[in-house]
Amino acid sequence: MSKKLKKGAKKPTLAVVGATGAVGTVMLSILSERKDVWGEIRLIASARSAGKKLMCRGEELTVVALSPEAFDGIDVAMFDVPDEVSAEWAPIAVSRGAIVVDNSGAFRMDPKVPLVVPEVNPKDTKKRPKGIISNPNCTTLSMIVAMGALNKKYQLKELVVASYQAASGAGQPGIDALREQISAVAGKNLGEATSDVRTVVTKNDVFPAPLALNVVPWAGSLKEDGYTSEELKVRNESRKILGMPRLKVSATCVRVPVLTTHSLAVHATFKNEVTRKGAQKLLAKAAGVTLLDDPENKKFPTPNDAVGTDATWVGRVRRSPDDKKSLDLFLCGDNLRKGAALNTAQIAELLAVELTK
Amino acid sequence: MSKKLKKGAKKPTLAVVGATGAVGTVMLSILSERKDVWGEIRLIASARSAGKKLMCRGEELTVVALSPEAFDGIDVAMFDVPDEVSAEWAPIAVSRGAIVVDNSGAFRMDPKVPLVVPEVNPKDTKKRPKGIISNPNCTTLSMIVAMGALNKKYQLKELVVASYQAASGAGQPGIDALREQISAVAGKNLGEATSDVRTVVTKNDVFPAPLALNVVPWAGSLKEDGYTSEELKVRNESRKILGMPRLKVSATCVRVPVLTTHSLAVHATFKNEVTRKGAQKLLAKAAGVTLLDDPENKKFPTPNDAVGTDATWVGRVRRSPDDKKSLDLFLCGDNLRKGAALNTAQIAELLAVELTK
Repeated sequence: MSKKLKKGAKKPTLAVVGATGAVGTVMLSILSERKDVWGEIRLIASARSAGKKLMCRGEELTVVALSPEAFDGIDVAMFDVPDEVSAEWAPIAVSRGAIVVDNSGAFRMDPKVPLVVPEVNPKDTKKRPKGIISNPNCTTLSMIVAMGALNKKYQLKELVVASYQAASGAGQPGIDALREQISAVAGKNLGEATSDVRTVVTKNDVFPAPLALNVVPWAGSLKEDGYTSEELKVRNESRKILGMPRLKVSATCVRVPVLTTHSLAVHATFKNEVTRKGAQKLLAKAAGVTLLDDPENKKFPTPNDAVGTDATWVGRVRRSPDDKKSLDLFLCGDNLRKGAALNTAQIAELLAVELTK
Repeated sequence: MSKKLKKGAKKPTLAVVGATGAVGTVMLSILSERKDVWGEIRLIASARSAGKKLMCRGEELTVVALSPEAFDGIDVAMFDVPDEVSAEWAPIAVSRGAIVVDNSGAFRMDPKVPLVVPEVNPKDTKKRPKGIISNPNCTTLSMIVAMGALNKKYQLKELVVASYQAASGAGQPGIDALREQISAVAGKNLGEATSDVRTVVTKNDVFPAPLALNVVPWAGSLKEDGYTSEELKVRNESRKILGMPRLKVSATCVRVPVLTTHSLAVHATFKNEVTRKGAQKLLAKAAGVTLLDDPENKKFPTPNDAVGTDATWVGRVRRSPDDKKSLDLFLCGDNLRKGAALNTAQIAELLAVELTK
């Protein structure tokens, strides 16, 4: 599906669908910070939010309601909405002439929709028979840039992943729920050395257990064999992005009381022998990666360091004492930026380059 | 080294060394709850705490200062003190006639000191040429009861562990630091959707980074090849307890903002094929294990469920989709109880049985 700008247009037009959500809000600030490759930017959201005014690139923009006509004249549409909204509206946007970059789970595993991380598989943006490109899940995105770089040199064989996922992975309601719970437990006498927050945290619609002073081994919905949708996304999306359909991947996804930025402990096994120094050197140079690995001075990434930044932070790089082909690492990535809005914007920018060629 | 009770004594005497610390406090309540196998119980602590009165078994006991004479007449001495204090004083207690059960790291890897988990290797208590038995580290203890049970049936080959460790693993100062930080961040406007607690958490002597609204991939001190002492303990202690000196173990230890109870995501690979149902059935019956694994109803263990209980809680049992010999599990264990005081008390009770035979 090749596409050209309208005659006379110098820059492509962009729609942000879901502009008022947690990711949409971050998207507007990212669009304001990055190189300005866009002509008109149109903000689209549910009818409820229509008429709302938001700032982007220093201009005040008025949100318009989602409708087929809202996509008229749009070259690229970025979607940050629930799966079912994307499933319905992305094809409508395409039928109105837009290329869609979708951050929902609706199309990620569709063989006719590429799943793209610009640092890893940028060329896949060109193979888009449906006019739709998918953006990976935030948990996959918190490690895949670093894993892609290591894979190029050492060839991945297996990933064992344990996640430390932030509340904002469940959107604004997740952030609000954690803030509320933290306020409820603060200063309370919770008994000697116990973390019993049940007594003070009663309302809890977003997470299946209290999150303040607790960790909750659940994200997403139940899928095959006891795995959650989130855990299978880490497996299936990593395989698709890396182009390795047989890569062994096991993940356990756990929610932690952090507002924003996912962390992951990864045990990666390769076909080739690795060295700690070699891996550190490679990661220090890899695009999109910030290496913070100085254990002598207790320097390593934490969510608090990574939040609000664009990079995948990597530290605690170690070669397994029992296997010369395995590395243990700890990674942090802002799930609202690289994990969502930033990667979507980067894909859209690849399309802007293509459209203005 | 065989030992008998003093003539006429019906029950052995017990010393609790470090009675006023975070673990010591839990120890006194555990001794009050369990079957009463002890004659005199003597509380020992640093000179600073001498004279303090504490309740145990419904009696008020007066803490005595640590001295060689304090061990006179003691049959079993449980130590919950820093490594260097154990290293100096455990041999003194032995020279005064006591058998020592030590919960520090001082003797754990000494080949002449057994490392015991009563559900896994109770018979090792008898091989104690130095008169000292070591209690494992709390992180190892949070999984080893369940792993020991699985190992008996399926034979372990490899463990990949990621921990979610509570603040109380760093003792009372850890608990206090987290409580203080939680109070400091509660209700504060930390910026839209960020976890930037740096602005409000300034004093932080216990952990190398803020812990409230954050996770910190560091516990213990730096050892070989970038691993921490805590990570190598998980490896070396698991091997020793299971009697498998070549077991492959990789661990990444991460502190989370939970007051008490460590959690672990474990990817365990066995020599034999496993099934999810078979593993669940085995764990449901295993001594010291509580299986809570009903994902259909979103039931799984969290620190909040496990805190204050004796069992190792296991849930999220899954067989890896890519390997019939691998299981993914999530475990929780109260690091002050089974992870420290309870296991020490259980070892001491094995000695009480031996002494009264």
